[in-house]
Amino acid sequence: MKEVFDYIDSNKDSAIELLSKLVSQPSVAATGQGIKECSDLGLRLLDELGANPKLYDIGEGSPLVAGEIKSKKNPSKTILFYNHYDVQPPEPLELWDSPPFTPTIRDGKMYGRGVSDDKGELAGRLKLTEAFLRTWMDVPCNFKFVFEGEEEIGSIHLGQYVKKYPELFKADGVIWEFGGVNPKGRPQVVLGVKGILYVQLTSKVAKKDAHSSLGAVVQNPAWRLVGALNTLKKGEKIMIPGWYDDVRKFTKEELGWIRKAPYEAKAIKADLGIKNFIDNMSVEEVKKALAGKPTCTICGIYSGYTGEGSKTVLPGEAFAKIDFRLVPDQDPDDLIRKLRKHLVTQGYEDVKITYSEGEKAKRTSPKEPIAIAAKIAAEEVYKSPPIIEISSAGTGPMYLFDAPCVAIGGGHSFSNAHAPNENKDLRYLVMGMKWVADTVNRFAEA
Amino acid sequence: MKEVFDYIDSNKDSAIELLSKLVSQPSVAATGQGIKECSDLGLRLLDELGANPKLYDIGEGSPLVAGEIKSKKNPSKTILFYNHYDVQPPEPLELWDSPPFTPTIRDGKMYGRGVSDDKGELAGRLKLTEAFLRTWMDVPCNFKFVFEGEEEIGSIHLGQYVKKYPELFKADGVIWEFGGVNPKGRPQVVLGVKGILYVQLTSKVAKKDAHSSLGAVVQNPAWRLVGALNTLKKGEKIMIPGWYDDVRKFTKEELGWIRKAPYEAKAIKADLGIKNFIDNMSVEEVKKALAGKPTCTICGIYSGYTGEGSKTVLPGEAFAKIDFRLVPDQDPDDLIRKLRKHLVTQGYEDVKITYSEGEKAKRTSPKEPIAIAAKIAAEEVYKSPPIIEISSAGTGPMYLFDAPCVAIGGGHSFSNAHAPNENKDLRYLVMGMKWVADTVNRFAEA
Repeated sequence: MKEVFDYIDSNKDSAIELLSKLVSQPSVAATGQGIKECSDLGLRLLDELGANPKLYDIGEGSPLVAGEIKSKKNPSKTILFYNHYDVQPPEPLELWDSPPFTPTIRDGKMYGRGVSDDKGELAGRLKLTEAFLRTWMDVPCNFKFVFEGEEEIGSIHLGQYVKKYPELFKADGVIWEFGGVNPKGRPQVVLGVKGILYVQLTSKVAKKDAHSSLGAVVQNPAWRLVGALNTLKKGEKIMIPGWYDDVRKFTKEELGWIRKAPYEAKAIKADLGIKNFIDNMSVEEVKKALAGKPTCTICGIYSGYTGEGSKTVLPGEAFAKIDFRLVPDQDPDDLIRKLRKHLVTQGYEDVKITYSEGEKAKRTSPKEPIAIAAKIAAEEVYKSPPIIEISSAGTGPMYLFDAPCVAIGGGHSFSNAHAPNENKDLRYLVMGMKWVADTVNRFAEA
Repeated sequence: MKEVFDYIDSNKDSAIELLSKLVSQPSVAATGQGIKECSDLGLRLLDELGANPKLYDIGEGSPLVAGEIKSKKNPSKTILFYNHYDVQPPEPLELWDSPPFTPTIRDGKMYGRGVSDDKGELAGRLKLTEAFLRTWMDVPCNFKFVFEGEEEIGSIHLGQYVKKYPELFKADGVIWEFGGVNPKGRPQVVLGVKGILYVQLTSKVAKKDAHSSLGAVVQNPAWRLVGALNTLKKGEKIMIPGWYDDVRKFTKEELGWIRKAPYEAKAIKADLGIKNFIDNMSVEEVKKALAGKPTCTICGIYSGYTGEGSKTVLPGEAFAKIDFRLVPDQDPDDLIRKLRKHLVTQGYEDVKITYSEGEKAKRTSPKEPIAIAAKIAAEEVYKSPPIIEISSAGTGPMYLFDAPCVAIGGGHSFSNAHAPNENKDLRYLVMGMKWVADTVNRFAEA
């Protein structure tokens, strides 16, 4: 790998240039801004690598860009790089220190929307492929690339692409779109994500708000909603019958990895300004909950008058947005049925459920060759043992991929992903490329 | 009274002109717009009547305008006219068919902010006084006028004016600021109002919103709030210990009046688009609840993300605005202590209570001379027996007045008070003036 690493080192500036080119091209899935142009750019870049790319378009949403480079020496094994070329909206613009689509380097960091999430990873993977091709004149195994354009809006059509073009997603292992180091610079091998069921509960009583003196005789949708919500949880337990039926318990091995992983409890608490976690959880309980506790979170609630001071209004309607995080093997389609049944049983058949998002959880075993390769490569590149994270507390469409997945890359903490002044520490751009390149090579040889 | 009624009829246009002048002068207590100018206008109008008015200003909020006309033939009895010169904000402006401060007459109705609430009543009372003075050269008893400028923001300083200038409020009877006919044109004698305790409950956990994946370990203020709210009510019963201790039961006589009063249940249900009242209440139960049931209404609730679609956020803060309507002899100062104690007992000492408004209920007995006078005068003017309403379901600062109060006047249903296209049916402007004039005369003679 020495010649590959050397190529990466001596072509650092060209990687930065590529990243800058990608960030200069807006690609906001939520608004559609620049999506067409950025998918064309992705297509061109894969074409320059010789990946015979194609644009796939099911006629709705952003198109998918995919390509493949066959390995001469090892054509029987395939690695898939899953990335996304879309970015979050840049707003609020006034909080950026430099324009979001004008990449700017300050103190070794590049600033711009998408520079970290996910164009930094995307550029890194294109450049490490180039490194193999220019030094070895080959790739260690077949390289497949899938760049989607809707990750930031819940990958809403990715499942349809998987169904329509299954061959694009067939692989022996997947390098997931994100990954990197923890706040102290230690590499993290993330092996899973939680699932999600996101719903809105709505109680509608009257066609308009009324004077609150009518509260004596007219049903109040806010009270209906509060009553319905209150049946969902008791303390930290979700009370919907059967909710935990399919929850897979941690294996002994998983518990071992959770115990070993560090957690920056103090930094998190200081950042949020809180004194304790729920129920005074210990750090070990916190780590277990983040990786494996099914949750029921009110993300938003609204009804009636919410301005300054007092207004005596009886609301006509009330709603709450609820995010259930799921763990293996919970199924959002099954759970929404259980939620519906529960509300009816509890006397809240009038509370409407609107399904908004559903994704299953997924975990890859640390024993999978791709996980082992990522671990050894991390030790090689960073000279320190990586943190094995059984599952991120977040969610992604990993369950759509049959092959084992590892999330590794050139990301760093405090990159302000999704926020103003998103940035990429350029040291980790290089380190991440080496880590992924070495992982893929070890995986190909395994 | 014939000459007084004739004067009112033949000077209808001049009454309309006065109303138009008052409505043209904005006077929004919430923003302060035009308050100074409108209090000056009120002062000038009372001065033109010979009421020796004065502006009272405690240095905070809107000033109070008050004056008195002594009766020559009956100086031992005093009636007080309580009105307000302030109006609700005119927003949303785009929903008005004509500008809110440019009074416009269409189909026998004048449109404009405050035309009904309360400048129509204020103008009517000035003009009926003029009618007595121009025909009898006297008033039937002493006439006191109190025009406050903060009714639409909860009469927040009126109690201080009562304490500082008790002589302004000393009277044998009070003609309340509102009153009129029901949807079918039958006059209503309203003898009371409910009280109110308006509070905001706030749960604050973190200094900012966080990613909802942290819901597994960080307390959610929306759940805290839902839990706290849920302890306040069980079905329609308020569960705060001692809440009903001071509730005065209806007398047999009051129940008789409630039974006799018609209630436009169908029209109310159609207007709101509802099928039933709470718990399928009968019309008699509805009337009893409106007049005498203590309520606990969520007027507004808010936390986290409330826009379109889904956003995975763990809120840092949540709040609800609660309106408790009170009945005699509940005391808001006592009840807020009970609420505080209850939340602590229930384990919600972290939920903050912000006191926003507190007013006691008040009822005047139908046996009071002023009530009897209003009833007989209604029969005289409208040629139909009036509806006796023991208590409005709404609230006002009636409890600050020692004397018996009746709410009668020239109002009509569907006047859009507090809403766009507020209007005044000009037929009732005249009828209301006659009704109030005859009431006052009968009261003076009683």
